[in-house]
Amino acid sequence: MSLPGAAAAEQLPLATVPAVLDALRRGEADSAVVALENSVEGSVPTTLDELATGEPLQIVAEVHLPVSFALLVRPGTALADIKTVASHPIAQPQCRRWLAENVPDAEWRAATSNAEAAQHVADGHYDAALAGSFAAARYGLAVLAEDIHDVADAVTRFVQLRRPCAPPAATGMDRTSVVAFIGEDHPGALLEILTEFSVRGINLSLIQSRPTGAGLGSYLFWMDLEGHVDDARVGEALMGLRRICADVRFVGSYPRADRVRPEIRRGTHDNDFTEAAAWLSTIRTGHA
Amino acid sequence: MSLPGAAAAEQLPLATVPAVLDALRRGEADSAVVALENSVEGSVPTTLDELATGEPLQIVAEVHLPVSFALLVRPGTALADIKTVASHPIAQPQCRRWLAENVPDAEWRAATSNAEAAQHVADGHYDAALAGSFAAARYGLAVLAEDIHDVADAVTRFVQLRRPCAPPAATGMDRTSVVAFIGEDHPGALLEILTEFSVRGINLSLIQSRPTGAGLGSYLFWMDLEGHVDDARVGEALMGLRRICADVRFVGSYPRADRVRPEIRRGTHDNDFTEAAAWLSTIRTGHA
Repeated sequence: MSLPGAAAAEQLPLATVPAVLDALRRGEADSAVVALENSVEGSVPTTLDELATGEPLQIVAEVHLPVSFALLVRPGTALADIKTVASHPIAQPQCRRWLAENVPDAEWRAATSNAEAAQHVADGHYDAALAGSFAAARYGLAVLAEDIHDVADAVTRFVQLRRPCAPPAATGMDRTSVVAFIGEDHPGALLEILTEFSVRGINLSLIQSRPTGAGLGSYLFWMDLEGHVDDARVGEALMGLRRICADVRFVGSYPRADRVRPEIRRGTHDNDFTEAAAWLSTIRTGHA
Repeated sequence: MSLPGAAAAEQLPLATVPAVLDALRRGEADSAVVALENSVEGSVPTTLDELATGEPLQIVAEVHLPVSFALLVRPGTALADIKTVASHPIAQPQCRRWLAENVPDAEWRAATSNAEAAQHVADGHYDAALAGSFAAARYGLAVLAEDIHDVADAVTRFVQLRRPCAPPAATGMDRTSVVAFIGEDHPGALLEILTEFSVRGINLSLIQSRPTGAGLGSYLFWMDLEGHVDDARVGEALMGLRRICADVRFVGSYPRADRVRPEIRRGTHDNDFTEAAAWLSTIRTGHA
């Protein structure tokens, strides 16, 4: 993975997203990497919910990795022996066609992660796991079939997390993640939020509503947007959210893995905001 | 008129809006009062154009006066003698019904002001003038009929002007006038401008488009809005206009004559902006 500091760091594999995040929160790790979104299956609910409502952590980098699933079994297992296939719920739909054609009678079993699924296979609870082929060696398993995912160009977006900190410097090709909490469910809340971004020319790359767990009608929006919190247009939009939402959680500003530079609309560059603020000062004081 | 300083000031009557404004610009007057808008006939184009595109002046107060027209004639003139009636173009439609019933054969003649119309009658050029009855004494005329306006509750909004200065302090019941210039006529320009106000909960009480005189497709919007330039929501909206428009002219913030206190939408009070700015600072620096 091309993540800052990742090459030199000691790796600490853990079976589930909550376990990974808790190790970071407790200070047992300095940084954590989890999947946030997949190009086939969409956002990863556990990650979103943990980052939106658990003890705060902050995204400092992201990486896009091609999805590559293998079928892992105990050595000696043949396709005909497979009665159960385990995986994280996000993996199963990505291999649905292959599974239907090759092990049509196998039942699928949910695991909290593909790593956990592999462990269950090693322990003899299930016959096969969907996981990266690299996991075979770790769990003493064999790769029975490689590249069994149905969509060729699927990509999973992983994020690197730290405990709350100053964001990495803006690069001009940045993404910002925020969570907006709607307190009372009032009509037009989402429109109000989206307008705060659109009036300042800010595009959203992901928007996902989730219940907060605090009762019916209490929900949140996870939003990924183009730009950095230090960009004037993003800062003003986030202040707008802060004013109109019950709460806003800043989840991070970080360089985009795809290195796409956003098109900045007329009148929304940083220097447009600087010039406008100077002008406002002159009309308020009456001095040019 | 209940305008600041008006009672003690020396009065300097002038025949036309441009003459009044030029006297102020040249320093021959310290303050000027002109009609801006009428509840029956709408905005006064000469005033809007002068304030939008002439040498800058600033509105510092407004007053709403009931409209009351009288028919002024040279002493001895009877209704049957009247062949011509002169007035400012804004006065004639307000008396249309009375004129049709009482002097159906009289022709209407335009004057640059009702005062000028009265002068023309005194000079013998026209037979009658539509003007306030108070003008009779000044021009040596007689009031042949009073209260000849068709709409009973018509009101004209006058504004007091000064050379550019610091605005009077906010009262919580203020109005702000601005002119937005659209450079290239691009689709959606008006929508963009209106969105800058609506996203911050600011209502407009007047919006009027006018050609700038700089060629086809070059136009301006005169806008009166609820609030004072020192209000955070108004300041931010004006900075938004400044960013997206070819030019913006601030024409003034001043107490509303009707003393209506605007309803300030959730999240758009000054303290909401202050709190949001403090929050943004903490997430940008990583320090709570």
